[in-house]
Amino acid sequence: MSKGKEAVVTPWEVKGNIDYGKLIEKFGVSKIDKKLLSRIAKVCGGEDKVHPFLRRGIFFAHRDLKWALDEYDKGNKFYLYTGCGPSGPVHLGHATIWQFTKWLQDVFDCELYFQFTDDEKFLFKDKSFDEIQKWVHENMLDVIAFGFDHKKTHFIVDTKHANIMYPQAIQVAKKLTTSTVKSAFGLKDSSNVGQMFYTAMQAVPAFLPSQLKGKNIPCLIPHAIDQDPHFRVTRDILPKLGYYKPASIQSRFLPGLGGIQKDGKLSSSTGAAIYMTDSAKDVKKKINKYAFSGGQATVEEHRRLGGNPDVDVSYQWLSFFEEDDSKLAAIYADYKSGKLLSGELKAILIEKVNGILAAHQKRRAKAESKISKFMLKV
Amino acid sequence: MSKGKEAVVTPWEVKGNIDYGKLIEKFGVSKIDKKLLSRIAKVCGGEDKVHPFLRRGIFFAHRDLKWALDEYDKGNKFYLYTGCGPSGPVHLGHATIWQFTKWLQDVFDCELYFQFTDDEKFLFKDKSFDEIQKWVHENMLDVIAFGFDHKKTHFIVDTKHANIMYPQAIQVAKKLTTSTVKSAFGLKDSSNVGQMFYTAMQAVPAFLPSQLKGKNIPCLIPHAIDQDPHFRVTRDILPKLGYYKPASIQSRFLPGLGGIQKDGKLSSSTGAAIYMTDSAKDVKKKINKYAFSGGQATVEEHRRLGGNPDVDVSYQWLSFFEEDDSKLAAIYADYKSGKLLSGELKAILIEKVNGILAAHQKRRAKAESKISKFMLKV
Repeated sequence: MSKGKEAVVTPWEVKGNIDYGKLIEKFGVSKIDKKLLSRIAKVCGGEDKVHPFLRRGIFFAHRDLKWALDEYDKGNKFYLYTGCGPSGPVHLGHATIWQFTKWLQDVFDCELYFQFTDDEKFLFKDKSFDEIQKWVHENMLDVIAFGFDHKKTHFIVDTKHANIMYPQAIQVAKKLTTSTVKSAFGLKDSSNVGQMFYTAMQAVPAFLPSQLKGKNIPCLIPHAIDQDPHFRVTRDILPKLGYYKPASIQSRFLPGLGGIQKDGKLSSSTGAAIYMTDSAKDVKKKINKYAFSGGQATVEEHRRLGGNPDVDVSYQWLSFFEEDDSKLAAIYADYKSGKLLSGELKAILIEKVNGILAAHQKRRAKAESKISKFMLKV
Repeated sequence: MSKGKEAVVTPWEVKGNIDYGKLIEKFGVSKIDKKLLSRIAKVCGGEDKVHPFLRRGIFFAHRDLKWALDEYDKGNKFYLYTGCGPSGPVHLGHATIWQFTKWLQDVFDCELYFQFTDDEKFLFKDKSFDEIQKWVHENMLDVIAFGFDHKKTHFIVDTKHANIMYPQAIQVAKKLTTSTVKSAFGLKDSSNVGQMFYTAMQAVPAFLPSQLKGKNIPCLIPHAIDQDPHFRVTRDILPKLGYYKPASIQSRFLPGLGGIQKDGKLSSSTGAAIYMTDSAKDVKKKINKYAFSGGQATVEEHRRLGGNPDVDVSYQWLSFFEEDDSKLAAIYADYKSGKLLSGELKAILIEKVNGILAAHQKRRAKAESKISKFMLKV
């Protein structure tokens, strides 16, 4: 990528020119290598069955994934833990993590603990508790629409499950100084005391099943790389409480429509986002209007010089959503050669996204009655 | 009192030579004056019916008590909120607060919310969660033994009632900066993040009934003066959440057996304490061995010079526990004149305390089966 402003990657802000190689170093995570990919291929029945997000390096880094697979091979199956910060509608950025999580659940046939961090969003956003609760409900419909197995999937809502969450969170909090939290998250003395405490709540699902079942169970956390500080803190504390460090697997960001340098990751806070509940017409409008193009200024120039798929947001999005490798390669080549125009590339993306959303919305419409089946019972 | 080391009065430490007049100024509370006392006398049916703790200035200060009585007169009855930090056995220091709270409940016929701060004790003490839970149970037996009306008394255990407490505590926490908590409680960056958050949990019972019932209900908090910083913070925040500031009524400390300068308030952390479950033999031993005496070195000198009841711990304790004003006055005079010897004064106290404990222990033995009736239902 071309140079741009300096990258910032924290749980609350992603912006600038992100160098994922440098992030691996900075965060101290490990690259997912071929050896790990072939171990996963064995479980899912062949290299062609491996999820495109892994094949394409979208999930690119990990902590202790090898250990989690070793335990799996020994019959000590891991569970998955991921979550959602309910402060707005679900967008395609969330979709990438949850679609992949669903794939992991299917391939490894494992339990999933899905946390709705309503306390976090209330404490960090200028929104009322009631508004956050509305989003908890709306977001649950989306999560269910991804097709998780309700027999193996357990929703935790921090404030609704506080009877089990808070007594565990204080175990974490007791081991966690204010200065550690300040430096890990950039919080200050002007931060509210709920923000200081919050990461202790986020740590709990990384050991809650072990606590509830009275035996240590490995945990694997799929998440976007910006959430890593939470789990770095969690990994430091959990062995002090007698639990395993959770393993994790990190994804790149789905860029915002304006491109990663301008908009950062796709988010409802910056730039335009495409929501899982958007109409086909809205999707068309947004992509045509906002998707940063790698094309040339005129058709004539584009035909002569070709486009730049490496900065083109439509192409980058297709690298997430077009599962067929050969189709994707053809699009790359055609755009680079100038054969494919920017408008045509956008049209391909629009069709792809609208197909995904139509199917999602159909499942979402049937989700309401299933919510209670997903709620964690204790 | 004679001069001694400088007084320290915080929720976690009380020591030195305490000047209650200065504390009133320093904490910004108001003295309970004759006008207030006569208003209370009207409610309880005469000046002689007013609790000795009020008549004797043991409950000596308040915030907004006049307002709470005004609201009471208008038919907007206050409820009481007090609590217990469950990290050890209940001692006679606790007893003073709860005995008075019970009297307030009877006189004003009002609800009582009784908080067991198991999270606080876990976060601030080097004790395991299981040990704290044991004390929650033991302390409940003592609280019940004070004779509270279970139809009007509601136990809250922070971690057991977290489903209702935590969602309210984050409302408080969002309005409370880390620097405010640091300066109010002397916490530091090395303090754990649970300690930073905790005061938000302690604030909740000061408005929980208003929240549960959907209308503002005045709250009156009887407590020892060292707990005031918690409620000062609470009073700042509650109006921002649309609730009344809680009124409060503050007591002096029952001194430790070694005297307030050496041992501070009676506590299980410093010096010897007398517990509600102590045997008559233990009480006799402890008072004879540890109670600081205001007597002279020899009987002969004592007869000649007289004792000093103002520093004598046995006399000070009798000023809490001997309800008969004329008996108390006679003891004071006789000790001062030298007629009453230190050993005789101790014997009077031993008999008094053992009478209180015997009655308490009898009620405590029947408390176990009542616990569930006292637990707050929501």
